[in-house]
Amino acid sequence: MSAQAPHSTLLIPGPIEFDDAVLQSMSHYAESHVGPGFVKTFGETLSMVRKLFQSTNPAAQPIVVSGSGTLGWDIVASNLVEKGENALVLHTGYFADSFATCLETYGANATQIKAPIGERPSFEQLEQALKEKPYKVVTVTHVDTSTGVLSDIKRVAEVVRRVSPETLVVVDGVCSVGCEEIAFDAWDIDVVLTASQKAIGCPPGLSILMLSGRAVDVFQNRKTPPAAYYASLANWLPIMKNYESFKPSYFATPATQLVHALHTTLSQITARPMPERFAVHAEASARVKAAVADLGLKQLAATPENQAHAMTAIWLPEGIAAPDVLPGLLKRGVIFAAGLHKECPTKYIRFGHMGVSVTDPARKDIDNALAALKEALTDAKQAKGL
Amino acid sequence: MSAQAPHSTLLIPGPIEFDDAVLQSMSHYAESHVGPGFVKTFGETLSMVRKLFQSTNPAAQPIVVSGSGTLGWDIVASNLVEKGENALVLHTGYFADSFATCLETYGANATQIKAPIGERPSFEQLEQALKEKPYKVVTVTHVDTSTGVLSDIKRVAEVVRRVSPETLVVVDGVCSVGCEEIAFDAWDIDVVLTASQKAIGCPPGLSILMLSGRAVDVFQNRKTPPAAYYASLANWLPIMKNYESFKPSYFATPATQLVHALHTTLSQITARPMPERFAVHAEASARVKAAVADLGLKQLAATPENQAHAMTAIWLPEGIAAPDVLPGLLKRGVIFAAGLHKECPTKYIRFGHMGVSVTDPARKDIDNALAALKEALTDAKQAKGL
Repeated sequence: MSAQAPHSTLLIPGPIEFDDAVLQSMSHYAESHVGPGFVKTFGETLSMVRKLFQSTNPAAQPIVVSGSGTLGWDIVASNLVEKGENALVLHTGYFADSFATCLETYGANATQIKAPIGERPSFEQLEQALKEKPYKVVTVTHVDTSTGVLSDIKRVAEVVRRVSPETLVVVDGVCSVGCEEIAFDAWDIDVVLTASQKAIGCPPGLSILMLSGRAVDVFQNRKTPPAAYYASLANWLPIMKNYESFKPSYFATPATQLVHALHTTLSQITARPMPERFAVHAEASARVKAAVADLGLKQLAATPENQAHAMTAIWLPEGIAAPDVLPGLLKRGVIFAAGLHKECPTKYIRFGHMGVSVTDPARKDIDNALAALKEALTDAKQAKGL
Repeated sequence: MSAQAPHSTLLIPGPIEFDDAVLQSMSHYAESHVGPGFVKTFGETLSMVRKLFQSTNPAAQPIVVSGSGTLGWDIVASNLVEKGENALVLHTGYFADSFATCLETYGANATQIKAPIGERPSFEQLEQALKEKPYKVVTVTHVDTSTGVLSDIKRVAEVVRRVSPETLVVVDGVCSVGCEEIAFDAWDIDVVLTASQKAIGCPPGLSILMLSGRAVDVFQNRKTPPAAYYASLANWLPIMKNYESFKPSYFATPATQLVHALHTTLSQITARPMPERFAVHAEASARVKAAVADLGLKQLAATPENQAHAMTAIWLPEGIAAPDVLPGLLKRGVIFAAGLHKECPTKYIRFGHMGVSVTDPARKDIDNALAALKEALTDAKQAKGL
């Protein structure tokens, strides 16, 4: 039995449902951000971030900063790219546009390779672009929450390393870290940025990053100072190193209660091998996608290899819009999200299946949601005379 | 009786002790950041921020963003000042140096008027500086947490309005909002930036700002785009207006649980007239300062008019350092902070007296702390043979 007040089940692509122990950690009593208790908690949390990314390379650097996931874009754009340098943005939805805007805000020249809705740029396009001019970074959205498209990070990194070895591979993992496979060291990626509130299962408010030794070197060899202050790695790198060595350190007050919650959820997640967690999410995703197909519905992400395991973006039948279906789901205690793609926000709905809703089958969140979806669709069709 | 686990009383200049109901709000179940429940909570919270600042002018704009208080500096520096414009920084301790660095990061020319430790720049110096060149902003730290020096915001604003009416008056109120008097409209100030974890009594992780209509106009008349992305008012202004009108809106996922906690603490704070809250803090501060004087100790802030009511920074006797006293306090269940001023961090200690520790006399936090201070000092002197 959950200790939480009764509520509809939140199955959007983040925030997600929380484990009771994680939520209880949010109510931790007041502590000094430089006192030994909190310093230990934060230091252990940073070490667990390494495990989350299956990283053992000591040159890699975890970062946890108070802020939304979006702040991770600023940390990349203001520290790893200098004014006038080129950034290549692989576009699979809404979030690539925004990341490109962020990069340009700090002076990068951002070039996007766009794919039609539900698809992703080809590796040939990537290789071709890398041969045309020098890129400081290539950015790729692991799971674009607006479309449910999954990118193949491993292959993107392979192409970049082969064609343009100095280019940093930057992964927007906001909707992927904690449920989609990521092998930070083995795939030789340079940055994964994410947020606390998706498959990591912590309430929103923490920006979480993993930087490779190569990325840290690129930062340290900048010719110009970082282009932001709160997002500056010059401010944060020493702080993170100190906390992980259990030394108190101050730049800006960390979100102490959120760090406790992150500690709790990462303790749960890293207690089991990460591949096991990825497999559980893949199984749940396969079940959702099979059920969606049984309902005669198609996904935005058209082919199995580019379908996320974190979520499913579902085209609605002709004549039915998101506002026709979402209230019927809510009536049955289930919250899905409307679309987010600028071109067609009401033509599809998004079902997030991450974290405890997937890992704790006793909750029956996925089964209940699939049953509710079937009923809500039937109701919507009837109401429209379809 | 508190619902919290037993713990030493946190009496540093933030974070501070929390009310049980505020902490319980941190454990709120998962909600969509664009669902009607959370939209209502966030909208009401923004309206209460207005009350916190005693502001009724509809042109003023409250902002609540996921981040540390430090992010407020970036919001000011990247939105209200353009490259090459002048910023005048009134220095009363550590935080002015950092704010000046932040302003310079985004291209401002920052000029500091420095005062000796424990003092503040004179109004004559301010007037003189304003006559020398045009300043886009004047920044002033209301309570510098490193020294306990209180600035006279009302008079600073009067001088600026008289001598340089277009200059924006920017107040760093991180350690003042919620306990030191601020009349946003009446004093005609343009920005107060603060954080959730000090006298507002919410856990850390929210950057809170109030902007005047004049500040919003200055932003909207920029010649160049904002110099940051996550901190950009172009991104946040429409979001805040929408939430306050109870319309869902998305730029970056808000820290939903922290916003609930802020809602709870602001409901408590704004249920009583703000002047009453300021008076309670002034009384507690007077009691602390009298007790400190009785112990033969001096404060960094030398004269009563520049002593903060939020905290007291206390010089230790010759031969006694902060590490000689803080463990003796901890043994007695009380946590003070060491110094933070770069020149003399171990020569003084800092006692924060804000929020429930002051407003709930049944807790006896202040009495217990004063008794513990007396005993810990006696022990430290004996140990040193003084």
